[in-house]
Amino acid sequence: MDDPVTGTADGPLDLGSWSCPVPLRDSPTLVLGHGGGGQLSAELVENLFVPAFTSGAARGVTGGAAGTGEGAGVLASLADSAVVSLGGARLAFSTDSYVVRPMFFPGGSIGDLAVNGTVNDLAMSGAQAAYLSCGFILEEGTPVETVARVATALGDAARLAGVTVVTGDTKVVDAGHGDGVFVNTAGIGLVPEGVDIRPQRARPGDVVIVSGDIGVHGVAVMSVREGLEFGTEVRSDSAPLNGLVAAMLSATLDLHVLRDPTRGGLSASLNEIAKASGVGVSVTESAVPVPGEVANACAFLGLDPWLVANEGKLVAFVPPEHADAVLAAMRAHPLGTRAAIVGSAVEEHPGTVVARTGLGGTRVVDLPLGEQLPRIC
Amino acid sequence: MDDPVTGTADGPLDLGSWSCPVPLRDSPTLVLGHGGGGQLSAELVENLFVPAFTSGAARGVTGGAAGTGEGAGVLASLADSAVVSLGGARLAFSTDSYVVRPMFFPGGSIGDLAVNGTVNDLAMSGAQAAYLSCGFILEEGTPVETVARVATALGDAARLAGVTVVTGDTKVVDAGHGDGVFVNTAGIGLVPEGVDIRPQRARPGDVVIVSGDIGVHGVAVMSVREGLEFGTEVRSDSAPLNGLVAAMLSATLDLHVLRDPTRGGLSASLNEIAKASGVGVSVTESAVPVPGEVANACAFLGLDPWLVANEGKLVAFVPPEHADAVLAAMRAHPLGTRAAIVGSAVEEHPGTVVARTGLGGTRVVDLPLGEQLPRIC
Repeated sequence: MDDPVTGTADGPLDLGSWSCPVPLRDSPTLVLGHGGGGQLSAELVENLFVPAFTSGAARGVTGGAAGTGEGAGVLASLADSAVVSLGGARLAFSTDSYVVRPMFFPGGSIGDLAVNGTVNDLAMSGAQAAYLSCGFILEEGTPVETVARVATALGDAARLAGVTVVTGDTKVVDAGHGDGVFVNTAGIGLVPEGVDIRPQRARPGDVVIVSGDIGVHGVAVMSVREGLEFGTEVRSDSAPLNGLVAAMLSATLDLHVLRDPTRGGLSASLNEIAKASGVGVSVTESAVPVPGEVANACAFLGLDPWLVANEGKLVAFVPPEHADAVLAAMRAHPLGTRAAIVGSAVEEHPGTVVARTGLGGTRVVDLPLGEQLPRIC
Repeated sequence: MDDPVTGTADGPLDLGSWSCPVPLRDSPTLVLGHGGGGQLSAELVENLFVPAFTSGAARGVTGGAAGTGEGAGVLASLADSAVVSLGGARLAFSTDSYVVRPMFFPGGSIGDLAVNGTVNDLAMSGAQAAYLSCGFILEEGTPVETVARVATALGDAARLAGVTVVTGDTKVVDAGHGDGVFVNTAGIGLVPEGVDIRPQRARPGDVVIVSGDIGVHGVAVMSVREGLEFGTEVRSDSAPLNGLVAAMLSATLDLHVLRDPTRGGLSASLNEIAKASGVGVSVTESAVPVPGEVANACAFLGLDPWLVANEGKLVAFVPPEHADAVLAAMRAHPLGTRAAIVGSAVEEHPGTVVARTGLGGTRVVDLPLGEQLPRIC
C-alpha cells in the first residue's frame, strides 16, 4: 500500500487521503505529530492528560498549567517510568504502545521493540525490569502466522532481557479499524536502594554521555518503508539496556539522569532534561557519534539525525567526578563500546540546549514540534 | 457507519466487507471470535502466546500443550491478574486493552471501563489497585475534544476507585488504521497477607455467589449500537469492585476464587474455574439474577444472558462455612445488594458446568466458542 504521508511513487498525490505529519497546532483534530514525541506530544500530555488524571479537568491542547492533584507529581515528572512505593518496595512502572510500520525491519520487529522499549524505560530509572504485561489489539483478517511471529520475537526478546511476561490480554477489532498488530507492554522493576535517577536531577557541571551511534533505528525502519538502499544495510539498534545500566551503576549509584532517546531523538531527550532540571546543556556537535550510513541517509531524506529515534541507546548526565569511571564501565559493555562524552550541563541558558558546531559557532537545538518519522516505534 | 457484522439496515449485505464474529476454527487468519473470551481466545492464549512467551515456540492456534518455561506457571494460570513477588512485596499485576464501540454508552464510556476493568482484574486476586499505567492509540483526525472526554472519564473513574494514574504513553496512527481511541491500562496492587485467590482453588462444597444482576453491560452497549429501545433504558453496570472485595475479605480472608464475568459472561467464568480447579459446578438457573429488561433484550436479540459481558459484577467460590458471612457482607455493600447464592462446586462431572432448569432438568453450560457481541469492552 502507498504511504499517504509521502504520496504514491507513480501516481498523483491524493490530497483526500493526505495524512499530515506536520504540525497543525490549533487543529481541533489529532494530527500524527501529536504522537511524535515533540512539542505537540508534550502539550497533549501536559494540558490534557495530566489535568484529567490528576484534577479532573482536561484543559484542551494548548495553554494552562499542569495538574496539581494527587499523583500529579509522579505523572507530571514526565520521566520514562514512574517510581512508586508499594508494600515497602520501590518500584519503577512504565508502559508503551507499539504501532511501528512495517512490523518487521532489519535488526528487529514490533515484538522485540515492545520488550526493549519498556525494559529501557524502566532502566532509565535505574530499575531492572522483572515482569511485563502484554496487550494485543489485533485486526480481523491478520494471518495467525504473523501474530505468531510477533509473539515469538517478543518472547525471545523477553528471555534475552531477563524479564518474564506474566499477564496479557487480546482484543480483536473488525477489519479496517486496526492495522494488523498493535502491542502494548507495561513493566515493573525494582529500583535499587540509593538510586535516584530522574530528569530533574541534572546539575551544572554534569558530564553528558551518549552510549553509542545515534539515528540507527529510525533510518533502518525508514529504509524498508520507503524501499531505499544506502549501499550497506542499516540495522535497527533495538536492544535491552538494563545490563548496560547495571554496569554503569556498578561504577557509581550517583547517576543523575538517564534517558533513552526514542521518538524525537537525542534533541528531544536533551531538551526535556534541560527543561525539567532548569540547566543549560552544551553539546559539541562533532562529538556525537553518527554513523556514515545514517548521515548519508539523513542527508538524502532531509532528516536531522539528532531527531531520529533510537531503540538501544541512552544519554546520561553524570557528576564530573564519576564520569571517567562510568564511561569506562560503559565501554566495557557490548552495548556501550562506542560510548562518548558529548557535552555538559551548564549554568548558562537554563532550559536551552546549544550545540557547538565544527566552525566554532553555536546553534540552538530545539525540541521538534511534530513528527519527522511517523510510526517509528 | 453501518456495522459490517450485522449488515446495513436499508441496503443489501456487502459480503466483501463481511466481518465475521462466528468461529472459523481452522482459519489461517484472525476472526473476531479470537477476541471474544471463549474457546477461540483460550486456544490463542494457550497454544500461541503462552508457548511463545515461555519456551520460545509458538505452536499455532490449535493443538499442543501449554508452555513449561520460566513464568509459564504464572502466565498459564490464566487468572484475571498475575500475582508476583518483588522486593518483598506480593503484587497483583494485570493489563487490558479497551476497544468498545460506541465509546460512550448509557452508564459509562471507554474511559471508565479502562479503569474499572483493570481495577477489577486486580481485585479478583484480592488486591487493592494502587497505580495504573495508561496507553492511548489514537487515530489521526479524531477530535481532540473526544480524547479529552475519554481522558476526563478515565481520571474521574480513577479517583472514584482510589487508584492513581502514574505513567502513560500516546501513539497516533494514520487515519484509516485505527478507530478513534483505543486505551490500554495496566495496574499494580498489593495482595494482603493470608490471601490466596485464584481459579485453581475451587473445592467441592464451595458455595457459588454472584454479586448482582448479570448481562447489563453488554445489553446497554448493544442497545445503543443497534439503536434499539427496550422501554426502559438499560445502563451499563461498569463499576470498580475493589471496595466490594475488601468488604468480602473483612468477612473472611479464605475466599477461594473470584472472577469478573466480562467477555464470555457468567458461562465463560464458571467454565474457566471448573477447568482450572477440576471441580464440577452446579448452578440453579432460576437463582441467577437476570433483570427483566436484560431478559427481554436478550430474547429479542437472540442472545444468552449468561454469555453477555458484565463490567461491575463478580462471581465468588466461598467455603461453605463462610458463605453466610460473605453474602451478608456483600449485601451490605452498595454494589452487592442483589448478591445471591446460585450454586455450588461438586465432585461430579469435573471440569463441567451444569445448570438445573426450572422444569427439574439439567443442561450443560458450555464455554462459548467465539463471540456473541464483538467489541463490548
